[in-house]
Amino acid sequence: MNQSAPEDGSRPTDEVASGPATTINEGMDEGALAEMIGDRDAGGCTEWVEATHGQEAVRALSRLSDEEREQLLAMVEPDVAAEVVERLPEPQAVDAIEHLDANIAAAILAEIPSDDRVDILKELDAPGAEAIICLMEAAEADDIRRMVAYDEDVAGGLMITEFLAFPTTATVSEVLRDLEANAEKYADFNITYTYVIDEAGALVGVVPLRRFLLARRGATLDTIMIPDPVRVTDLEPLVDLSIRFRDEPYMGLPVVDATGVLIGVVERSGVEHALAEESDEAYREALGIIGGEELRSMPLVVRSRRRLAWLSLNIVLNIIAASVIAMHTDTLEAVIALAVFLPIISDMSGCSGNQAVAVSMRELSLGVTRPSDLFRVLGKEIAVGVVNGIALGVLIGLVAFLWKGNPWLGGVVGAALTLNTMIAVSIGGCVPLALKGLKLDPALASGPILTTVTDLCGFLLVLTFASMALAKLT
Amino acid sequence: MNQSAPEDGSRPTDEVASGPATTINEGMDEGALAEMIGDRDAGGCTEWVEATHGQEAVRALSRLSDEEREQLLAMVEPDVAAEVVERLPEPQAVDAIEHLDANIAAAILAEIPSDDRVDILKELDAPGAEAIICLMEAAEADDIRRMVAYDEDVAGGLMITEFLAFPTTATVSEVLRDLEANAEKYADFNITYTYVIDEAGALVGVVPLRRFLLARRGATLDTIMIPDPVRVTDLEPLVDLSIRFRDEPYMGLPVVDATGVLIGVVERSGVEHALAEESDEAYREALGIIGGEELRSMPLVVRSRRRLAWLSLNIVLNIIAASVIAMHTDTLEAVIALAVFLPIISDMSGCSGNQAVAVSMRELSLGVTRPSDLFRVLGKEIAVGVVNGIALGVLIGLVAFLWKGNPWLGGVVGAALTLNTMIAVSIGGCVPLALKGLKLDPALASGPILTTVTDLCGFLLVLTFASMALAKLT
Repeated sequence: MNQSAPEDGSRPTDEVASGPATTINEGMDEGALAEMIGDRDAGGCTEWVEATHGQEAVRALSRLSDEEREQLLAMVEPDVAAEVVERLPEPQAVDAIEHLDANIAAAILAEIPSDDRVDILKELDAPGAEAIICLMEAAEADDIRRMVAYDEDVAGGLMITEFLAFPTTATVSEVLRDLEANAEKYADFNITYTYVIDEAGALVGVVPLRRFLLARRGATLDTIMIPDPVRVTDLEPLVDLSIRFRDEPYMGLPVVDATGVLIGVVERSGVEHALAEESDEAYREALGIIGGEELRSMPLVVRSRRRLAWLSLNIVLNIIAASVIAMHTDTLEAVIALAVFLPIISDMSGCSGNQAVAVSMRELSLGVTRPSDLFRVLGKEIAVGVVNGIALGVLIGLVAFLWKGNPWLGGVVGAALTLNTMIAVSIGGCVPLALKGLKLDPALASGPILTTVTDLCGFLLVLTFASMALAKLT
Repeated sequence: MNQSAPEDGSRPTDEVASGPATTINEGMDEGALAEMIGDRDAGGCTEWVEATHGQEAVRALSRLSDEEREQLLAMVEPDVAAEVVERLPEPQAVDAIEHLDANIAAAILAEIPSDDRVDILKELDAPGAEAIICLMEAAEADDIRRMVAYDEDVAGGLMITEFLAFPTTATVSEVLRDLEANAEKYADFNITYTYVIDEAGALVGVVPLRRFLLARRGATLDTIMIPDPVRVTDLEPLVDLSIRFRDEPYMGLPVVDATGVLIGVVERSGVEHALAEESDEAYREALGIIGGEELRSMPLVVRSRRRLAWLSLNIVLNIIAASVIAMHTDTLEAVIALAVFLPIISDMSGCSGNQAVAVSMRELSLGVTRPSDLFRVLGKEIAVGVVNGIALGVLIGLVAFLWKGNPWLGGVVGAALTLNTMIAVSIGGCVPLALKGLKLDPALASGPILTTVTDLCGFLLVLTFASMALAKLT
């Protein structure tokens, strides 16, 4: 992650000896860092970053003001600043990089692993990102431009470009000499595999590191490599990658472009990380946090505006659905008890439908269901809808009957909830597949579509049934 | 993953040569596997498992009936059965293992990496798990019993027990000989790090694999190891582990018990995987899939019953909230227009509150917020609640006013939504922290608490304000 980082899995003894990282500075004043930033005390800040770890560090860094964070990053050496950036939640990291001088930003990003670096650059506006990329080494800049162009959910967007590759004609002792000479540069590489490439850069073999331990020093790589290793193409989607890593105990897989040239390595941990991000996003979107994640340290105006955008859409959809009630106030006036059941039917249909949404989302991400399975899902959901719809309908019908002593009221309310539960689970099960098939975001759009349709249908069913049975209800 | 698995990152050439794994058998009849199982054709099934990969394999295996899956696992060799188990979604894997003869189950589980093995054993009932564990090698059985006892969200529950450890006095050539002799056993080990232990088994050093490449064959490990390496204790929680791996580029960290004895290794990918599982679970629970994940291949009775348990709780809470309306039907009768706005206020307050829940959940999992930050969160949320509450209140108030031409109606409805939005975001922001502080599951319980309280308050506010302004409304 940075040039001064100690070799794999270790820290200098004196730091380790001072106790588990999470308790360091436990009692330290959270304002101390802000004070040092205010005093432009670069040495003190560097010391703080090196000495503070775990939740303490994350909390303190994420609670600085935007200006303080930018000052901190500009003040300390790039490798220390990179440590800070790696600890920040992504929105804050992006925001800070965006406001830094491009030269400083480029120096910091050079110290960050390629996949995290690309994640940040993708979030910047295009001219800002290009200004930073221009300042990097030409070869690195080309790598980065290529990676930024990939979607986040394909191998090319998930790979790292820190890998070892040698020509078929290299000898074991040449590789060992290279490893020794570039020990510092390779400190952050995952060198479990060494790849073997031909003159055109195409992947032709892999040498697991352990094979070097036992090989003759004079052997060339083509004699000790495993030829034609498993590889993935740069456009392989995340769901397929996740299945591959579930299938086999690979720690990483080489990524090749359409011509077979080795361009990166997708690691098991990178795939797991992308899956976690995807689930997080689905959760946030389902609960109405749209347009990127929100942290409470963000300015009120940003937080309010983003949330309000979502709420405004929903209130319009709600008003549209409720207009069905407005058109039936005569029925409602005649049977005022119905007003008690309208919110219940709206809420319960939302609950039933959301359950079906959750199952579809999970099956899509596990790869057991595809958009083309729409009718299978519909059949399965209708079955659940019939059972649960009847159960809930009988329950609410009984409550209505017992409350007012009128079996017709129970019948109207119960029948409406039964039917609407069937509608809700059908929509909830199918909409995510349909959206996915249309390349739209199912986590984002399923909720509003579901609740609007089920509210509309629910209100309509209750009030229509009631107007049909009006003579028996009054 | 199994003894016949080829060395890291490779498959035999002939398989690779037959094209990318995901397209193999693309056109194959999905019923072919079921047919071979019916015919007890173990050879055919083995061939199918070896030749079919990616989504095709996952879909076909997960759509077998429970009986077919059990027959398949019992019929093929344990290493092939282990491949099947690894590809199945966890609930199906657990279910199949549960119904197998303990001897067969033990043989299959022996071929599965220790962390996945423990995940499955944890889901079995205690006697069933013990019956299987008893049949394993004594040393392995002890490891497993210890791992099963850990929570899933601490280092001990996330670690693998496949790691290399040698005494300080071992020489480089002894280690290399051991690696060679046990090449097959170690094929599934992540050997990026070799750990060094003292006579008591306590962790005293680490040797990155690359150091062996350049070391003298006669050197003892204590001369080439990095002493006192970073380690985590078995009870370190997931949130701290995730911050450590964000902080530093470790691929794995050694796990020690309270006495300093090395008991396992927690890998970066294992931590990322646990975070993904946690997000998935939060998403499922927020949408009402409770008690483990649901797949549509499960029997209807299981799916309906589980969903219904959640719906039954919610309908009771809904009836309680709606009883507020029932107690105010006189007001409602006088101003029937209010009935249109009750579902809107209920739904919008739920939306606003859920946004705050999502932000709290994310901040908890990032480690930037702790349960003790309750008042900070409350302050931040009230600010958003005031802004968004006024915006939504004015909007709905205007709609009410324009519809009925009565400014008092607009005032009642708008004031109720403004106030209830503030209540909703406060509850939504604080409840997850409070539940987390009480060691309860915030993803599960936040939703029902939120919607019940906000429905109750929302209905009460509208109807109370309306009864106060009744003279102006009619």
